[in-house]
Amino acid sequence: MIQFEIQYRVCYADTDKMGYMYYGNYARLYEIARVEMLRNLGVSYKKLEDDGIGLPVVENYSKFHFPAKYDDLLTIRCEVTEMPNVRITFNYSIFNTNQKLIHEGKTTLVFMNMSQQKVIRVPEVVLDFIKKDWK
Amino acid sequence: MIQFEIQYRVCYADTDKMGYMYYGNYARLYEIARVEMLRNLGVSYKKLEDDGIGLPVVENYSKFHFPAKYDDLLTIRCEVTEMPNVRITFNYSIFNTNQKLIHEGKTTLVFMNMSQQKVIRVPEVVLDFIKKDWK
Amino acid sequence: MIQFEIQYRVCYADTDKMGYMYYGNYARLYEIARVEMLRNLGVSYKKLEDDGIGLPVVENYSKFHFPAKYDDLLTIRCEVTEMPNVRITFNYSIFNTNQKLIHEGKTTLVFMNMSQQKVIRVPEVVLDFIKKDWK
Amino acid sequence: MIQFEIQYRVCYADTDKMGYMYYGNYARLYEIARVEMLRNLGVSYKKLEDDGIGLPVVENYSKFHFPAKYDDLLTIRCEVTEMPNVRITFNYSIFNTNQKLIHEGKTTLVFMNMSQQKVIRVPEVVLDFIKKDWK
Repeated sequence: MIQFEIQYRVCYADTDKMGYMYYGNYARLYEIARVEMLRNLGVSYKKLEDDGIGLPVVENYSKFHFPAKYDDLLTIRCEVTEMPNVRITFNYSIFNTNQKLIHEGKTTLVFMNMSQQKVIRVPEVVLDFIKKDWK
Repeated sequence: MIQFEIQYRVCYADTDKMGYMYYGNYARLYEIARVEMLRNLGVSYKKLEDDGIGLPVVENYSKFHFPAKYDDLLTIRCEVTEMPNVRITFNYSIFNTNQKLIHEGKTTLVFMNMSQQKVIRVPEVVLDFIKKDWK
Repeated sequence: MIQFEIQYRVCYADTDKMGYMYYGNYARLYEIARVEMLRNLGVSYKKLEDDGIGLPVVENYSKFHFPAKYDDLLTIRCEVTEMPNVRITFNYSIFNTNQKLIHEGKTTLVFMNMSQQKVIRVPEVVLDFIKKDWK
Repeated sequence: MIQFEIQYRVCYADTDKMGYMYYGNYARLYEIARVEMLRNLGVSYKKLEDDGIGLPVVENYSKFHFPAKYDDLLTIRCEVTEMPNVRITFNYSIFNTNQKLIHEGKTTLVFMNMSQQKVIRVPEVVLDFIKKDWK
């Protein structure tokens, strides 16, 4: 498996009138975590797209244990636990300032040849970077 | 069960560089669909909050079959299939202009006494409105 | 000049912890108002883009008199008061449920040939539609 | 005057189908820049709100010279050039990876006693922190 952590400060734009981070805004946190995880492995998602490969989301799941609140400095832990093939799944655990687990999430994306709009296997170069750091 | 449909026009703000509606923005569509469904039954979510009752989201699930694209006029079908108790679950099916099913989702919320931060049973007045239109 | 009005219901996604519509979310309202105004005149912004013409924003201004709040049913009045050339400017006045003016805004966009990334004059077909309804 | 700089990575959530950062999303960047500037001076905006003082936005202006694009690592320079009284104005200059100026903005906020909904003068404690670092 591969594990990565990143911090995120909840801003006003993220909050709603309940004073919580709006439930739709966790998707942004997931995105930042997985893109920075890939960058950390050596994979630029932007370069993948420039090379014609996209990663549309096919499934997304969120479980809200406790709210994230304004100005909280969250830790997002991102994990890949299954070797990707045509799909890659990222699991997220989000902790608040006191290291309490407040949220869990999971996103599945498919590798896609964007011009042909065809699902493809994970590119070798991506797989190599993942294998290199796999534990 | 209770069923309700509402239309939504995908705007530029919803899209991302892939030309699709960003995966985090479906949460807004879900929200609009369930709040308008409740309003249609006779329940104002705003009034519930003014009376001290909130409905924080505890679970959210999304399945993306096909992308929603800019300027698409979507139909969001929202259903409640289980009588609510401390929780209420809304199921969504989203159709594009050609009536093709492109997306499915599901949100579970809990009734909560906001000042006490305590989970409560569905208020009688809400239950009565739901029972009245239950099929 | 050309004038158009559209209604918009403030949703939870729009609000922030102050209970107001977040100041960045007015841009979405402006966008919906000007795109629906154009559609009403006979101009599809989507078709313009499909034909290679984009309308990037070059300037945006907002004045907040009173907050828009959750569940408010706003009226957005959109006006074009100068005949467009390479630029088109939209002025917005936003009224709350009690018809009180709560917000004013203004967006200037340029007509652009997207493949050449070159500013162009307003397409004749757009100008014709605008002239037809000009008062 | 006071000057502060912070970096921001443009994510997918920020982009629109033109491949640019959506014009409404700059408000988030402004917010992050001014809140981190204040934190850097010793002022916690969250603490201000906890103490009953809010800073609603009354005016916002944006000028778009060149687009911010996906994965760009932006530098946001934030400046206060006038000593605040009942209002405080923040000026922003945004630079892309090549240090090219791509965007300018300006936000004016008022100090407000939130429970009384009354405009007040800048709190002494905030003014002291600003004076301490004024150049």
